[in-house]
Amino acid sequence: MATTTTISQVGEFPLISALVKDLPMSRAVTLGPGDDGAVFQIDGSAVVSTDVLVEEVHFRRRWSTASDVGRKAVAVNVSDIEAMGAVPVALVVGFSAPGDLAASWAQEFMAGMAAEAEKAGVSVVGGDTTAGPVISIAVTVIGQTAGMAPVRRDGAVPGDEVAVIGQLGLAAAGLVLLGRGFRSPRAAVSAQRCPEVPYRQGRVAAEAGAHAMIDVSDGLLADLGHIAEQSGFAIDITTSSLDIEESVRTVGMATGMDPLNWVLAGGEDHALAATFTPGTVPQGWTVIGRVLPPGEMGDPTVLVDGQPWQHERGWTHFQS
Amino acid sequence: MATTTTISQVGEFPLISALVKDLPMSRAVTLGPGDDGAVFQIDGSAVVSTDVLVEEVHFRRRWSTASDVGRKAVAVNVSDIEAMGAVPVALVVGFSAPGDLAASWAQEFMAGMAAEAEKAGVSVVGGDTTAGPVISIAVTVIGQTAGMAPVRRDGAVPGDEVAVIGQLGLAAAGLVLLGRGFRSPRAAVSAQRCPEVPYRQGRVAAEAGAHAMIDVSDGLLADLGHIAEQSGFAIDITTSSLDIEESVRTVGMATGMDPLNWVLAGGEDHALAATFTPGTVPQGWTVIGRVLPPGEMGDPTVLVDGQPWQHERGWTHFQS
Repeated sequence: MATTTTISQVGEFPLISALVKDLPMSRAVTLGPGDDGAVFQIDGSAVVSTDVLVEEVHFRRRWSTASDVGRKAVAVNVSDIEAMGAVPVALVVGFSAPGDLAASWAQEFMAGMAAEAEKAGVSVVGGDTTAGPVISIAVTVIGQTAGMAPVRRDGAVPGDEVAVIGQLGLAAAGLVLLGRGFRSPRAAVSAQRCPEVPYRQGRVAAEAGAHAMIDVSDGLLADLGHIAEQSGFAIDITTSSLDIEESVRTVGMATGMDPLNWVLAGGEDHALAATFTPGTVPQGWTVIGRVLPPGEMGDPTVLVDGQPWQHERGWTHFQS
Repeated sequence: MATTTTISQVGEFPLISALVKDLPMSRAVTLGPGDDGAVFQIDGSAVVSTDVLVEEVHFRRRWSTASDVGRKAVAVNVSDIEAMGAVPVALVVGFSAPGDLAASWAQEFMAGMAAEAEKAGVSVVGGDTTAGPVISIAVTVIGQTAGMAPVRRDGAVPGDEVAVIGQLGLAAAGLVLLGRGFRSPRAAVSAQRCPEVPYRQGRVAAEAGAHAMIDVSDGLLADLGHIAEQSGFAIDITTSSLDIEESVRTVGMATGMDPLNWVLAGGEDHALAATFTPGTVPQGWTVIGRVLPPGEMGDPTVLVDGQPWQHERGWTHFQS
């Protein structure tokens, strides 16, 4: 009989600590894991963000590999630091799991975290592991402003061009596929398992003088809505300027659903959206709309081709 | 029929965010909650630590109020920053809970967090809330070294005096009481619900030139064991120097158990233990032993009155 080694057999506490301990650290980290706290240098001010991923709420083990989940936990968090125009430096992870979880799952999870952390340019400096009824992952990333003012949500001004970089609608299309038992198109399914965050582009936007920025985690309209509300001006999106990815169109055709809904309201892609003085939008970013002058459209809301949007604006994970 | 408002009725997402938003911030915090990340100033290097508290593993709702749990979540985390000799600055919380949790529980939890954060001198700058099968709380604290080198676990040298500040054995005695359905002595039960962390004493120790420091979360012998191992020298504890608190003695008498076990091996009190050059131990700290010269006792272990300890050395929460 083949048996699986569980984390409670290995000792769940030593397991993750041991894995974290072996990860490479950047030079900014002067004391890594293994003490009461890790120590690292910060250039400028510190920027912090935290996100929790819970099994069956944010991921499903039958849909995602352990590596996918580890990568996603890093990606969705670093994305917030990018959206401030800051540079990620250090990351800590709180990991809870049932004692009967296969030790190999935890190992692959940490390998996924490590791979994505390297891609994102952040060091995993510590963690806490504990028992719990389901897998629950809390990641906190600390970044540095490094000589730039943080790019907030409330800085958009009338006349700004609204631009995005990264994928839109792919993760939502992938969720529809997975929910129906499909595993392709691969790009959409992969995006649901772990988004392709446009690392370093938040910094590029800050250096280009972005006035406001956010990461698209809840849906383009919902997240631009935060910029509109907090800045006090309406935003108008031009749908003809939206690049709808091939695989999103394919899923739309196969399911008879309108792919534009996923692009405008689908969450979890973690693209970046920002507003810029016209003519200063960085290379690689796509202009998709503009910030309207006050009074042109009453509320500081987000319009689609000049009209209020009648459908879903955002996203609440697959639980609801 | 009296009805209870649940967090899913209020909207679990807005609830905690709204509560975090209203908390006072120190001047170091230049951007509080409500954006992709919070921004704050760091004096010197940053020190980070994370801890996860899971319902039925680290606390029980029938034993602790929501406020107790909120206070404990802050206390156990700040304690790690203190143990590095650093100054806590900012804290973020990841909060998961079932949708049917009473909204009042979440409110009281946040009020407890806020009260303890104020006591600890740290600002709650952000959070993430999500659904989950049980209450799970991940707190990350970021501190600053502010001109002092961090005090690590590996700096103890032969001849050092080993000293402690804070409570020892109270939380373990309180756990025995709660497990038997008792609610007094109050001091022990309260310590199990939320430890009394000796805030600012980690910094006092650093300023006094402490060579090594740790917070006593797993048990005095287990935690001093980390200092011994990582420094490479044995430590000898003198039991006659240990102040056993009155209520710990009382619980010992009432249960027929030896209170010394709780003092030496009981966890969750979050006292601080550090080693100092003789004569430099700060006021308020109690000298309880010394670091032995190499070779005096083979392994870098912790002895009790010169002898190996035959009983439990540490603590693994009430689950096991």
